Amino acid sequence: MKKLILLVELNSQRKTFFNLENFKDKEFISTNKGNIKISDIQECKWGEIVYTHKEFPYRVTPVSIVDYVIYGIKRETQIIYPKDASYICYMLGLKNGFKVFECGTGSGSLTMFLANAVSEKGKVITYEKREKFLNLAKKNIELMSLKDYVKFNLKDLEKEEICDNDFDAAFIDVKEPWNLIPKVKDVLKGGKKLGLLVPTTNQISEVLKILNNGFYNVSVQEILLRDYKINPDRIRPEDRMVAHTGYLIFANKGE
Amino acid sequence: MKKLILLVELNSQRKTFFNLENFKDKEFISTNKGNIKISDIQECKWGEIVYTHKEFPYRVTPVSIVDYVIYGIKRETQIIYPKDASYICYMLGLKNGFKVFECGTGSGSLTMFLANAVSEKGKVITYEKREKFLNLAKKNIELMSLKDYVKFNLKDLEKEEICDNDFDAAFIDVKEPWNLIPKVKDVLKGGKKLGLLVPTTNQISEVLKILNNGFYNVSVQEILLRDYKINPDRIRPEDRMVAHTGYLIFANKGE
Amino acid sequence: MKKLILLVELNSQRKTFFNLENFKDKEFISTNKGNIKISDIQECKWGEIVYTHKEFPYRVTPVSIVDYVIYGIKRETQIIYPKDASYICYMLGLKNGFKVFECGTGSGSLTMFLANAVSEKGKVITYEKREKFLNLAKKNIELMSLKDYVKFNLKDLEKEEICDNDFDAAFIDVKEPWNLIPKVKDVLKGGKKLGLLVPTTNQISEVLKILNNGFYNVSVQEILLRDYKINPDRIRPEDRMVAHTGYLIFANKGE
Amino acid sequence: MKKLILLVELNSQRKTFFNLENFKDKEFISTNKGNIKISDIQECKWGEIVYTHKEFPYRVTPVSIVDYVIYGIKRETQIIYPKDASYICYMLGLKNGFKVFECGTGSGSLTMFLANAVSEKGKVITYEKREKFLNLAKKNIELMSLKDYVKFNLKDLEKEEICDNDFDAAFIDVKEPWNLIPKVKDVLKGGKKLGLLVPTTNQISEVLKILNNGFYNVSVQEILLRDYKINPDRIRPEDRMVAHTGYLIFANKGE
Repeated sequence: MKKLILLVELNSQRKTFFNLENFKDKEFISTNKGNIKISDIQECKWGEIVYTHKEFPYRVTPVSIVDYVIYGIKRETQIIYPKDASYICYMLGLKNGFKVFECGTGSGSLTMFLANAVSEKGKVITYEKREKFLNLAKKNIELMSLKDYVKFNLKDLEKEEICDNDFDAAFIDVKEPWNLIPKVKDVLKGGKKLGLLVPTTNQISEVLKILNNGFYNVSVQEILLRDYKINPDRIRPEDRMVAHTGYLIFANKGE
Repeated sequence: MKKLILLVELNSQRKTFFNLENFKDKEFISTNKGNIKISDIQECKWGEIVYTHKEFPYRVTPVSIVDYVIYGIKRETQIIYPKDASYICYMLGLKNGFKVFECGTGSGSLTMFLANAVSEKGKVITYEKREKFLNLAKKNIELMSLKDYVKFNLKDLEKEEICDNDFDAAFIDVKEPWNLIPKVKDVLKGGKKLGLLVPTTNQISEVLKILNNGFYNVSVQEILLRDYKINPDRIRPEDRMVAHTGYLIFANKGE
Repeated sequence: MKKLILLVELNSQRKTFFNLENFKDKEFISTNKGNIKISDIQECKWGEIVYTHKEFPYRVTPVSIVDYVIYGIKRETQIIYPKDASYICYMLGLKNGFKVFECGTGSGSLTMFLANAVSEKGKVITYEKREKFLNLAKKNIELMSLKDYVKFNLKDLEKEEICDNDFDAAFIDVKEPWNLIPKVKDVLKGGKKLGLLVPTTNQISEVLKILNNGFYNVSVQEILLRDYKINPDRIRPEDRMVAHTGYLIFANKGE
Repeated sequence: MKKLILLVELNSQRKTFFNLENFKDKEFISTNKGNIKISDIQECKWGEIVYTHKEFPYRVTPVSIVDYVIYGIKRETQIIYPKDASYICYMLGLKNGFKVFECGTGSGSLTMFLANAVSEKGKVITYEKREKFLNLAKKNIELMSLKDYVKFNLKDLEKEEICDNDFDAAFIDVKEPWNLIPKVKDVLKGGKKLGLLVPTTNQISEVLKILNNGFYNVSVQEILLRDYKINPDRIRPEDRMVAHTGYLIFANKGE
């Protein structure tokens, strides 16, 4: 039984996400180009074509974390883009079995990447102070079948303590990360990586000043992703691109 | 017992990789700034400082895959950079348990990222036609404790067949990928992702023409990584950067 | 008497271009935020503030070529952006007195930059095969008071000959530039620069093959311009940017 | 009589700058690949080939400002690159006849671009506090035959006054530009452009705070230039590029 699908319209390549569990009582799902029988979707193989009642073709496609973050996620916050999230997982040195600290959870976009990277023996311990966002994140992560690898905490870490320690990696994505860094340092294993994402260069300065106390091997980087058009006779970049998501900061914990 | 370490010199932030197994009979390892007692390294905690006999300080740091690829890997081929390798893992939708096709293995840089992403239940089936490179890749992957998740094949897939099927994802990094694409299509599950890296735009054109036959949802992208200096009073990018590694192409397999 | 003005709305920084000659019989010009008396505009100094009848403030600002190309130009074609146009002028080595070849004229955007660079003793000899575009370009260039430095030719150079020679520089911006390059070579002085703009990498290949015959010192480049937000407490790039305009090719003419 | 030349070696495309006035008493100039007769250079046409006594071919090429800045300039300071300098000229709205303020002169690289843009009726009034640099700049500008369009001032504008006014444009490239901005504002015409180049984002913040007082229409930008390899069968960017020169700030003077 297919549960999450991406329908790719053949001509426009437009992609639409569906959670078929929301259509249990229905016979059809509706698209811009007409209705598609759910039984057709369930009976075809992944990658095959189904047709709307107006005979427009769609490919039935499985949904990866990247697909979900781009086409399906319910979000109320700025999310961390796949170009950054995938790089973060590797810069933090994540592997199966790691225990990872995250604050804040936001819509849970990065949490999915972290959870996928440490499953099945590891765990992401994530903190968020706004209940609405935490609930949204829980739904997103459950949908991607990753909730066994995440422990959610509704807590404002500026005021309360981190109730765990000996983390193998940590990531901070909050407005004023400098307030959290000393606390996170206390619960991170020696030599292990702390990562941060900040949108402005003023924040880079503030973070670097705090990292001087107890961290080493500091790096600041930004990642730019450029899409190209796919006509083989006219290879060229797309006209416009995302110019900025955030600056990525990484450091190892010292003594 | 520490086995792989990165020594980070405190002033210059210069990083040097050591495999302590190669120093079993030795009492010291030597650096630019003098000798360090191996017993000091074994007795300190990760992230702590050891001193050379000339009293220069170094931090003892654990080695992630990214660290190994940048500072430690033995290579005889162009490698896939971490900025690209981490993005590839997520664009391929990798998770624990996936069976992944790779050709060619090269020095095994990407293989490590793939193996890490599918461990502990998955497997990377990798093909390389040059024995020298395959042996090198084996050593690199063994050093990162990932060899249980990789099956190495010494084979020229332009002449021989792929001896496996039902792959959950596939990646091709060879000079003339268009020759391999039809074969790989036959062993990849429907709806699943094929990825390729090519250095030139002429190769993009050739690949796109072949992908028209049996693939859909095609994307072509490039990733640029920019490093910043880390003086909080003088935030600015480094003077120079890597301007090009390769173009990344992804597509889903159709029927 | 002010003729061309840019009104900059103080809060939004939105800029609007006006040619006051089009308002000779009028008493007011109208903006999003109300009407402004033309006599107020004529009586104030450049950079001063005028108010709409609803008391919204606007700065009265002179119009440079760059301002005109971005905010005022009437266009029916893709134009060459200021980031590229200014670089082209210097890569062609333009200076006062040069005689420059251009084909095609398009909307006359680059023509203005070239004419400004060679005035007052030089001349741009520009060719365009579509009368509608040439007339538009003439109007644009007249508005910028540059028509004395431009000679317009309504001609299809794929079929007709170039009726001049001994050019100090040449620029080609047409769909199939390879057809023109041999003709342009014949009328360009030895050692002098030919420039081209092409949007695709396939076109770069075609141009490079032709340039091998009679040109040397070839370069291919692209220019990316990134805008930053201007809040001093939150320095960061804008969210989105232009990812591609075209590739710039330059070469010197051989013997 | 040729005076300034660039010799382009045919195979490597390596370029070498010569001022033939420095070889008045000589019969040969020497290159990596052997000696070339000066009489051969004087007798050939621009773009033609001359041979060393070892029969290696070189093209004899004229020298534009861009060529001189890249291959010939004598410098003791960081220079402003052509990608930035050409854009500055147009963003400042320069044209024949403009009177332009510049501080500091440095090695005179930008001064050449400014002087070329305002010749033959305009003037660049440039200020530099270090005599050594000013003398170097004078030599560079004289060599490019632009000294009639530049007035050099040996003055520290942090301590002394600007002895001129009614400028049509202004550019500041000093370490602490915020000290100069109020003085420059007083001598710049209303509505006209001030430009600045600063290497760090901290400096952007400081400049923006000062510009709030008396300037409007502020922009902050950076320009990236990417070189491509020129093999038509293998189109791709060069491996490495300049990642940062400086941030460009422009604003119009208010009332």
